[in-house]
Amino acid sequence: MTLFEVWAPEKTVRLRIDGQDRDMERGTDGWWRLDVPQAAAGTDYAYLLSGHDTALPDPRSPRQPDGVHGPSRVYDHGAFAWSDGDWTGRQLPGAVLYEMHIGTFTPQGTFDAAIERLDHLVDLGVDMVELLPVNAFNGRWNWGYDGVCWYAPHEPYGGPDGLKRFVDAAHGKGLGVLLDVVYNHFGPSGAYAPMFAPYLSASGSNPWGASVNLDGPGADQVRRYIIDSMLSWLRDYHVDGLRLDAVHALVDHTAIHLLEQAAVEVESLSTHLGRPLSLIAESDLNDPRLITSREAGGYGLHGQWDDDVHHVLHAMLTGERQGYYGDFGSLESLEQVLTGAFFHAGTWSSFRARRHGRPIDRHTMPGYRFVAYLQNHDQIGNRAVGDRLAATCSPGRLRVGATLLLTAPFTPMLFMGEEWAAGTPWQFFTSHPEPELADAVRTGRRREFASHGWAEAEVPDPQDPDTFERSKLDWSERGKPGHAEMLELYKRLIALRRAHPDLSDPRMDRVEVWHGDGHVVVRRGDCLVAANLSATTQTINLRAVPRSVLLATEPGAVLHRDRVELPAESAVVVTR
Amino acid sequence: MTLFEVWAPEKTVRLRIDGQDRDMERGTDGWWRLDVPQAAAGTDYAYLLSGHDTALPDPRSPRQPDGVHGPSRVYDHGAFAWSDGDWTGRQLPGAVLYEMHIGTFTPQGTFDAAIERLDHLVDLGVDMVELLPVNAFNGRWNWGYDGVCWYAPHEPYGGPDGLKRFVDAAHGKGLGVLLDVVYNHFGPSGAYAPMFAPYLSASGSNPWGASVNLDGPGADQVRRYIIDSMLSWLRDYHVDGLRLDAVHALVDHTAIHLLEQAAVEVESLSTHLGRPLSLIAESDLNDPRLITSREAGGYGLHGQWDDDVHHVLHAMLTGERQGYYGDFGSLESLEQVLTGAFFHAGTWSSFRARRHGRPIDRHTMPGYRFVAYLQNHDQIGNRAVGDRLAATCSPGRLRVGATLLLTAPFTPMLFMGEEWAAGTPWQFFTSHPEPELADAVRTGRRREFASHGWAEAEVPDPQDPDTFERSKLDWSERGKPGHAEMLELYKRLIALRRAHPDLSDPRMDRVEVWHGDGHVVVRRGDCLVAANLSATTQTINLRAVPRSVLLATEPGAVLHRDRVELPAESAVVVTR
Repeated sequence: MTLFEVWAPEKTVRLRIDGQDRDMERGTDGWWRLDVPQAAAGTDYAYLLSGHDTALPDPRSPRQPDGVHGPSRVYDHGAFAWSDGDWTGRQLPGAVLYEMHIGTFTPQGTFDAAIERLDHLVDLGVDMVELLPVNAFNGRWNWGYDGVCWYAPHEPYGGPDGLKRFVDAAHGKGLGVLLDVVYNHFGPSGAYAPMFAPYLSASGSNPWGASVNLDGPGADQVRRYIIDSMLSWLRDYHVDGLRLDAVHALVDHTAIHLLEQAAVEVESLSTHLGRPLSLIAESDLNDPRLITSREAGGYGLHGQWDDDVHHVLHAMLTGERQGYYGDFGSLESLEQVLTGAFFHAGTWSSFRARRHGRPIDRHTMPGYRFVAYLQNHDQIGNRAVGDRLAATCSPGRLRVGATLLLTAPFTPMLFMGEEWAAGTPWQFFTSHPEPELADAVRTGRRREFASHGWAEAEVPDPQDPDTFERSKLDWSERGKPGHAEMLELYKRLIALRRAHPDLSDPRMDRVEVWHGDGHVVVRRGDCLVAANLSATTQTINLRAVPRSVLLATEPGAVLHRDRVELPAESAVVVTR
Repeated sequence: MTLFEVWAPEKTVRLRIDGQDRDMERGTDGWWRLDVPQAAAGTDYAYLLSGHDTALPDPRSPRQPDGVHGPSRVYDHGAFAWSDGDWTGRQLPGAVLYEMHIGTFTPQGTFDAAIERLDHLVDLGVDMVELLPVNAFNGRWNWGYDGVCWYAPHEPYGGPDGLKRFVDAAHGKGLGVLLDVVYNHFGPSGAYAPMFAPYLSASGSNPWGASVNLDGPGADQVRRYIIDSMLSWLRDYHVDGLRLDAVHALVDHTAIHLLEQAAVEVESLSTHLGRPLSLIAESDLNDPRLITSREAGGYGLHGQWDDDVHHVLHAMLTGERQGYYGDFGSLESLEQVLTGAFFHAGTWSSFRARRHGRPIDRHTMPGYRFVAYLQNHDQIGNRAVGDRLAATCSPGRLRVGATLLLTAPFTPMLFMGEEWAAGTPWQFFTSHPEPELADAVRTGRRREFASHGWAEAEVPDPQDPDTFERSKLDWSERGKPGHAEMLELYKRLIALRRAHPDLSDPRMDRVEVWHGDGHVVVRRGDCLVAANLSATTQTINLRAVPRSVLLATEPGAVLHRDRVELPAESAVVVTR
């Protein structure tokens, strides 16, 4: 027995199942329902809408075995044999995150292949994996932000059971799993939900498509569609938290913002499940409201990505100042973010040509609410050729960057392969089967970078299968000279962060930063992090007499009472 | 090599070790220090203070093998072989707590004997054990509130290794451990710390002794003494949270209250350890500030005990109205606490003869922050004869009480033995070896209850070993008629709470209560809890047509469309 239910208040809906088209019953709530006694897990179905010739997949489809245009398949969430019964969750505070794209993490690009590599993450010492979106999208490969089925894991990755196997295996190894989810737009192909009901806003759009209807007529059901999707990942897939893509594109003028509603409902689910569930926003608003508690007037999310930390580190290490890096790169900007999380905190942004952001209260806001990274999928993949930091920076500077990141008061996140300074790029790739869409994406990409001076031939074709293949990690690099040493450094930094309470201390009001010509010192309780970014050896004032060196990124660092002599492009962590 | 350190700014201190008295070195901070190369775990030591003839135990002693008056013993926290390496913590939201007194939980009264009974708790379905204070106190047995060594587990319970074995075993079975800790006074015998330094306030006292110095000269170090003790339980003993005894007796006029300082430091430790650590206050202030986030001006604790819930339920079930039960017992007062946590919320308290409390914001404050109970050690043991609710209430009323508690939006807590309606009392017992102190305690107890009309012979002698023995659980009861059925009901209620998200939903603004003559209905999302407290069958309006009965405490409950026919003194949980 299966109950089929679909919301389509302005349509007449029939169910296509077992080669038959069957009438459904319309409820007063605009939902169409039909009980089908013989339907069970594995049964394919689709919906016929008045005014449409072809049968459409279910907006809440749990499984799309033949892709986003094909029929939906009934799936029984109760059937999976979980082995994580003793999993009591993994909290965000204290966690080191690892961003992973299933399609390019392994040669096979599947959940099952990724499971085989989890031991690498355990050895590395990270606590939680953050998966790029895994819900169904058009084509075989994609970053994931073209998703259209917000409840169905992408079949070529392994489908619903594959995702469950992955989460189950991760929990078995003590790793939490965060999932990137996109609710601010539907992908460009296969977005059938808006044919059923007013899922889209009549009034606006964002760079990726029409805005989702969060506050117009019918919005209550659209909000349920989104929040039920969140709850399903957390409950049915045992996921430990969600990374909410580009929340600044969620246009909601109701008195209870979707994000606050989500925080409340997820808190109830967390209470039901008895384990921490984290909601982490990607936001370019620099607005503390997102992560401020509801009783203090905020939305009560648990964390948000902090691009300012990235921009400071990237600009400082590379010397790049184009685009949004314009305001960043000074040691003053580093001091600002390490002590206050936001660089733009109600201050002038030259990129935006206006004031931007709002200061956080560093005395009450814990640093772990900010996810910080030296690299992530966007900051690499949105470069013309998807080159990682290692392509631009000397190994010495990379090591300095890693040291500053992993001793900061934030929640650090690595992008897969960063830990061994992967030589493989991570480029923008798509696999739209429709020629017109493929052309539009290809042309759009090239046009975007042409305006920055890139020749057409220099920018990889997103639709070329080689662009996807090229972006896969090359695991054979891991043990090779240059890479192996970087991996060893990341392991040591993560272990050091875990061993010394001062290095993960989230209290931003206890961070002190001072700097000189090409060097900087960060005080973290009884630990001091000193970095020399210049091309020559420097002797740096530590303002204290440290007892011992915990870690040096290069040989040759020497303590002289309250000073440290640091080789060029190197960093040291010392303790008092 | 062991570094001995003790704070005694106004004294001269020598170390007595291996039969020798050795000079120590005074630092400018008022701490005396000495490195002793040959001292290691197992070495006994004590301090000689100027002006005192006898050697005194270390205020921060980790172990008192011969009791609170004897020497201290060096202990190595790094030596224990923990097996809980994959423990990622147990959060408070969603947990069902079980209050346990180690001395009376088993006949042996030890940590190791308690370990043997953990399977009972797993079967019962609770998530966290809350231990009454286990730090060293005077005598062999005691409730624990006469503790004097705030870092040393009571030796007859099993000492430091015993507590670690207990926590390790609990974690191995998926159970978290909370520890009751007392920082508002020192016990009446063995409190040597105040001889070393100004641990006590010059200006006040509470019912249990002199107030602790939290804001006078020297208070910084006293606060460190307290907070370092908290951190030690959480870090060195792997404990998951602390129940802070009687925080209303922590007199602190500094701008950052000790409790806020504790919340901040424990949050840093939680980030370091990567697992949730809960601070739960026992407070009779009815002040939401304790559990309000710091960014909203509160102290940021995770929870607090809620006596009002107890008083409502107790008064309603028993009909008692003496003392602080005076204002409670009506169905209106039940409605008030189930929808707003506090009964006294800026309203008149006849017991206090003044207004009391402050309303919580039920739209933002989650119910799990309130620990609620039908019985606890105080509410039983502070009765003249330590009689449990089962001595006063019919089994039917007990079952109604358990149903209302375990379907409420709060964090439920059981007192050991409650789950099988233990026939054993839990009386006030002490074992002070000093005759004068013993007499004072005995006399004080009898005088207290004489004023309530109890004859001297009726009130058990706290010093009589039989009073202690009588208070031990009788595990043979568990399977006997009457007891076994109650145990079964508790298991079913806890399982039901876990299975139905609505029943643990912490949103108080979603709770609806209505009542009639001797009956009450509580709406919890799609679940409804109906209780008939009267002596006759009643037909109760559910204001909805439920689909099925999830649980009935008595046979004979019948659904009639939107009504339920309930036998006398019974309750039912139904779902729509």
